[in-house]
Amino acid sequence: MQWTKVLGLGLGAAAFLGLGIILGHFAIPKEASVSAPQDLDLQILETVMGQLSASRIRDNLRELSRDPHLATSPRDEDLVQLLLQRWRDPESGLDSAEASKYEVLLSFPSQEQPNLVHVVGPTGDIIYSCRQTEENLTGEQGGPDVVQPYAAYAPPGTPQAVNAAKHGVAGVLVYTDPADINDGLSSPSETFPNSWYLPPSGVERGSYYEYFGDPLTPYLPAIPSSFRLDLANVSGFPPIPTQPIGFQDARDLLCNLSGTLAPTTWQGALGCSYRLGPGFRPDGGFPADSQVNVSVHNRLELRNSSNVLGIIRGAVEPDRYVLYGNHRDSWVHGAVDPSSGTAVLLELSRVLGTLLKKGTWRPRRSIVFASWGAEEFGLIGSTEFTEEFFNKLQERTVTYINVDISVFANATLRVQGTPPVQSVVFSATKEIRSPGPGDLSIYDNWIRYFNRSSPVYGLVPSLGSLGAGSDYAPFIHFLGISSMDLAYTYDRSKTSARIYPTYHTAFDTFDYVDKFLDPGFSSHQAVAQTAGSVILRLSDSFFLPLNVSDYSETLRSFLQAAQQELEALLEQHSISLGPLVTAVEKFDAEAAALVERISTLQKGSPDPLQVRMLNDQLMLLERTFLNPRAFPEERYYSHVLWAPRTGSVATFPGLSNACSRARDTAPGSEAWAEVQRQISIVVMALEGAAATLRPVADL
Amino acid sequence: MQWTKVLGLGLGAAAFLGLGIILGHFAIPKEASVSAPQDLDLQILETVMGQLSASRIRDNLRELSRDPHLATSPRDEDLVQLLLQRWRDPESGLDSAEASKYEVLLSFPSQEQPNLVHVVGPTGDIIYSCRQTEENLTGEQGGPDVVQPYAAYAPPGTPQAVNAAKHGVAGVLVYTDPADINDGLSSPSETFPNSWYLPPSGVERGSYYEYFGDPLTPYLPAIPSSFRLDLANVSGFPPIPTQPIGFQDARDLLCNLSGTLAPTTWQGALGCSYRLGPGFRPDGGFPADSQVNVSVHNRLELRNSSNVLGIIRGAVEPDRYVLYGNHRDSWVHGAVDPSSGTAVLLELSRVLGTLLKKGTWRPRRSIVFASWGAEEFGLIGSTEFTEEFFNKLQERTVTYINVDISVFANATLRVQGTPPVQSVVFSATKEIRSPGPGDLSIYDNWIRYFNRSSPVYGLVPSLGSLGAGSDYAPFIHFLGISSMDLAYTYDRSKTSARIYPTYHTAFDTFDYVDKFLDPGFSSHQAVAQTAGSVILRLSDSFFLPLNVSDYSETLRSFLQAAQQELEALLEQHSISLGPLVTAVEKFDAEAAALVERISTLQKGSPDPLQVRMLNDQLMLLERTFLNPRAFPEERYYSHVLWAPRTGSVATFPGLSNACSRARDTAPGSEAWAEVQRQISIVVMALEGAAATLRPVADL
Repeated sequence: MQWTKVLGLGLGAAAFLGLGIILGHFAIPKEASVSAPQDLDLQILETVMGQLSASRIRDNLRELSRDPHLATSPRDEDLVQLLLQRWRDPESGLDSAEASKYEVLLSFPSQEQPNLVHVVGPTGDIIYSCRQTEENLTGEQGGPDVVQPYAAYAPPGTPQAVNAAKHGVAGVLVYTDPADINDGLSSPSETFPNSWYLPPSGVERGSYYEYFGDPLTPYLPAIPSSFRLDLANVSGFPPIPTQPIGFQDARDLLCNLSGTLAPTTWQGALGCSYRLGPGFRPDGGFPADSQVNVSVHNRLELRNSSNVLGIIRGAVEPDRYVLYGNHRDSWVHGAVDPSSGTAVLLELSRVLGTLLKKGTWRPRRSIVFASWGAEEFGLIGSTEFTEEFFNKLQERTVTYINVDISVFANATLRVQGTPPVQSVVFSATKEIRSPGPGDLSIYDNWIRYFNRSSPVYGLVPSLGSLGAGSDYAPFIHFLGISSMDLAYTYDRSKTSARIYPTYHTAFDTFDYVDKFLDPGFSSHQAVAQTAGSVILRLSDSFFLPLNVSDYSETLRSFLQAAQQELEALLEQHSISLGPLVTAVEKFDAEAAALVERISTLQKGSPDPLQVRMLNDQLMLLERTFLNPRAFPEERYYSHVLWAPRTGSVATFPGLSNACSRARDTAPGSEAWAEVQRQISIVVMALEGAAATLRPVADL
Repeated sequence: MQWTKVLGLGLGAAAFLGLGIILGHFAIPKEASVSAPQDLDLQILETVMGQLSASRIRDNLRELSRDPHLATSPRDEDLVQLLLQRWRDPESGLDSAEASKYEVLLSFPSQEQPNLVHVVGPTGDIIYSCRQTEENLTGEQGGPDVVQPYAAYAPPGTPQAVNAAKHGVAGVLVYTDPADINDGLSSPSETFPNSWYLPPSGVERGSYYEYFGDPLTPYLPAIPSSFRLDLANVSGFPPIPTQPIGFQDARDLLCNLSGTLAPTTWQGALGCSYRLGPGFRPDGGFPADSQVNVSVHNRLELRNSSNVLGIIRGAVEPDRYVLYGNHRDSWVHGAVDPSSGTAVLLELSRVLGTLLKKGTWRPRRSIVFASWGAEEFGLIGSTEFTEEFFNKLQERTVTYINVDISVFANATLRVQGTPPVQSVVFSATKEIRSPGPGDLSIYDNWIRYFNRSSPVYGLVPSLGSLGAGSDYAPFIHFLGISSMDLAYTYDRSKTSARIYPTYHTAFDTFDYVDKFLDPGFSSHQAVAQTAGSVILRLSDSFFLPLNVSDYSETLRSFLQAAQQELEALLEQHSISLGPLVTAVEKFDAEAAALVERISTLQKGSPDPLQVRMLNDQLMLLERTFLNPRAFPEERYYSHVLWAPRTGSVATFPGLSNACSRARDTAPGSEAWAEVQRQISIVVMALEGAAATLRPVADL
């Protein structure tokens, strides 16, 4: 999710300047009671939509973002208590709520020895210092609870780099360029608190860990007794000291560099030509022999991080879970990330909880609300949860709904998800009024910003695919549970900001949201209504509103890309796409036939076991795409359709990646064997999926 | 399952004589109609028990074992048609039956160049030849369909060994000693056709492949399009030419060896002292400079092997499968292995099919009958099936019941299985009369031969655990499906034969069974009744008759072994068993509480969805013990309680094996870390199992 420019400290051959990727993120809330309707009750749905209150979401957000609540900090634990109190409220709480802790490895800057970035003159004296903290512009950027900007999991060290040094990079400085985050603007008068743009001293914090989950306990829940890797055996941490700085400081360093002009695409909005070094230019602000000294004193610490789970017990099928999650931890106040999601979560759970406690309503299936801990460090709370309850969740979870940041901006809904969730989101959003001028539904507004031409449906809003930007990652990639991520976001014609500008800084505060992002909180309300409607549809509908045949378009498009861009190459290596074509056709036919059977049954009065059996087919379809042996080098990724794709061809990721590696190898190489293996893995998954969709007594 | 003495051909430092292990094996059949009772119908059960006919089983066996039916041979394919015809019979067939083929790598001797074993004199002349075929004692050991004795997957080669040669072993000769197979008897008058013992020329065939499943397609179904390993990358084949011979020929070679006396435990019943070589003794039957020459011409071939599946569709829960399997392929006529099982399979399917076609009965759940192909080569048909339908089978299969060899001998029932199946086998066998004198139930007869003192139940028959001897292996180890294997077997006070003596030879014929193993076929009938009752109970009972709390005894016993034999050692390395103790206690409590809830519900009239939810907990418990990352070096094995144990301590296999490897390493070694990891894996599995057994709305 997160793109920043990286300023490298050359200790050798060449100074280093480029684009770096940092883990980025997202978050929501919700509630439920005692009568069990046969099917989705439209009156209950209308009641819930009407009761979700923008001003209560605003009140929630003010409380949640009052103080910084970094993962495992005292305020983070206070919020655990706040959630428990809300979810145990006798008037508006859930059936039960519990907090549980995992002992996980986090990374913090030292309070005694702050991380420092200096320019040191030829005689060793400090001639320039980068800011250690952000400027206190609103009274909220000071105080001991505002964590110093840092790169979590970057190792400690004090590299000092002569820009002209010959070999290797000894340290990395990271900053966010105004061109990428501020539509080019950079002066104090143009930035927060005068606009939504990032002030010059703002620094983006983030985790620099390559994987997700607790670094010491891959594939094991981080309970105290679990086996932990020796630190020497941990992979995925940055190799060298790294420190983020603001663009104000970055300008002073970067605009004084000498050397070759950096490529055009690397140029930014700091008001100078960016050069690659080595060394400072002789006519600049620093003596030519100056060096940059970086001191990183980050410390790894085992900490107890809490998840909070709140449950509404299903009246009819309590063993089917609609899971709704949002992380709780922030870098600083985190009004947007993640408290905009948590504010929605609490309002949803209040409205549903009130109906539950009044005895007006109880869903058919169970609804589970989750507040994850330590997401900012690498989706840690959610990942540990999926490791602890792997089998149970895989067998019983209907869908995972994630709302991390609920409102990036107030232009339109944005949905990422696997194809089966498209239909329920469409149904929900067609019935909700969009905030803003006009009388559009959320659906009709959405289609104006994100759309595609579907061979089946014509013009429809387009869903994005799920990467690893938030807590949905372990659910979709590791457990194979149909998932979605909901948020309100930008009008791209009005800003090119990579993300909302104060992301992960001490300027992501309540006033920022209240004044700039969503005055009136109508976008928050829209997300709450969308999520609420989706939850009710998934938990109350007699037949699960997951359209499995919507996977066909994805498969067709992957297949077409393979045929157009790879088939000729594959034929040279005697590799046929024929079995893949057959498998896709078989999937299509079985999915369409299942949808048809459900449609026929819906006209009659099917008995509950018949419905359960069909619903199990719908729920478990996504599981058939998992293969834990497909990508042995990728931790947790086992969904053969959504694993990370590094190859350029937009087809099945295993095939794309394997072809990209095999391309330049000799016929008969291991790399070409892997291409063949990857095709077989997809064929097996699709044939297995088709088998799962067939009438159940046909093997 | 199979133990033979191995006669080594020393080409080097020392001649080689020892005990070799060969893969061994087992097999049954069954049927089903249109009214759906709420619960197990005792009258139907009685009808089925009464209709299972010993004489029809005998007729089946005569037909099945009339000709050799080696995997993929024309007669093997004829039997596929026979099964399809029976299962499609309008009067006594099933709802549907289909055959499907996998393209798998098998190994056969060459018909043009038979495998040979000679003794060659100092001048190169052949002075002695081992038999190429077994002696034609009953008119059934001749003809082109009797495959020459061979060691499947042993590589071709023609090693010639000077016993005094200095380095390495160039080839291996394998034979079965009369001490191990014939209670010491070896003369023609004492052996078949004059008794059940192996004739001197009898040779045990077998597969020498180390893993199971098709060697070229691990983890992928062997459909034609699947990726196949390059032969150079296949592991698990024997490294050197290997050939089995009869004990008649083995005596001529072994009794002429010179050298040191072999250890006492290596001595056998060939009537001489076994020596280790090197070389023949000067005063023996061969000149002292003679060499043994072995020519192996086995060829690897891709062949189409068929599985046959017959289905009785469940009336209420067609998506729950009771799966019953038996392999079809034999080494020669295979009257015992596997046709004694197939004869039972066909009788069971006839009786159930007749009730089905008459409209008298249709089970609540689906019953699937399977006839597996190429089991003798390494459980190939069943393994490929589990690879092709992994997810579907895992999600839906209640239990896998295997009957390979149905009758080893006629003394008693013998059951191998996971703890949850104990209760259903006990219930079934208490109600069936045992064959033989007296008026005992099968249960009461069984307890006389195999018993143990259970802390919960007192004296009960003891079940063995499931290794990899037959087609249950992929179901329990790879898919985590509760499984059992049923057979009638020996009175160990009457014979010490490792297995029935004509196992895998051309003497395993119909007359052998009819005259010696089970005259009257009452033991076959007893197995058919036991299997039939178990199938009906599993497919018709409202609540699944799987007692999950019976796992507690296993866990307690594993835990106790760890505490008694490992705890002191573990404490020296600061490794605590505490978390394991807690996890076992948690499992016990949750399992007992679930059994109690079911018992309470059984007194009322629970609704079908409530029952379904509880049954899902019972069915899926076994799945929670799978961890595909627990034993990365073991192909297919992922059940953390039943993986192969090489350590001597009878505890959790991963813990036992890891401790055995760590014992002699330094504190802090990787091997000790693995011990800790293995404990965490078991703790996670047990905590996950307990979570699955909890009331479903509790996470």
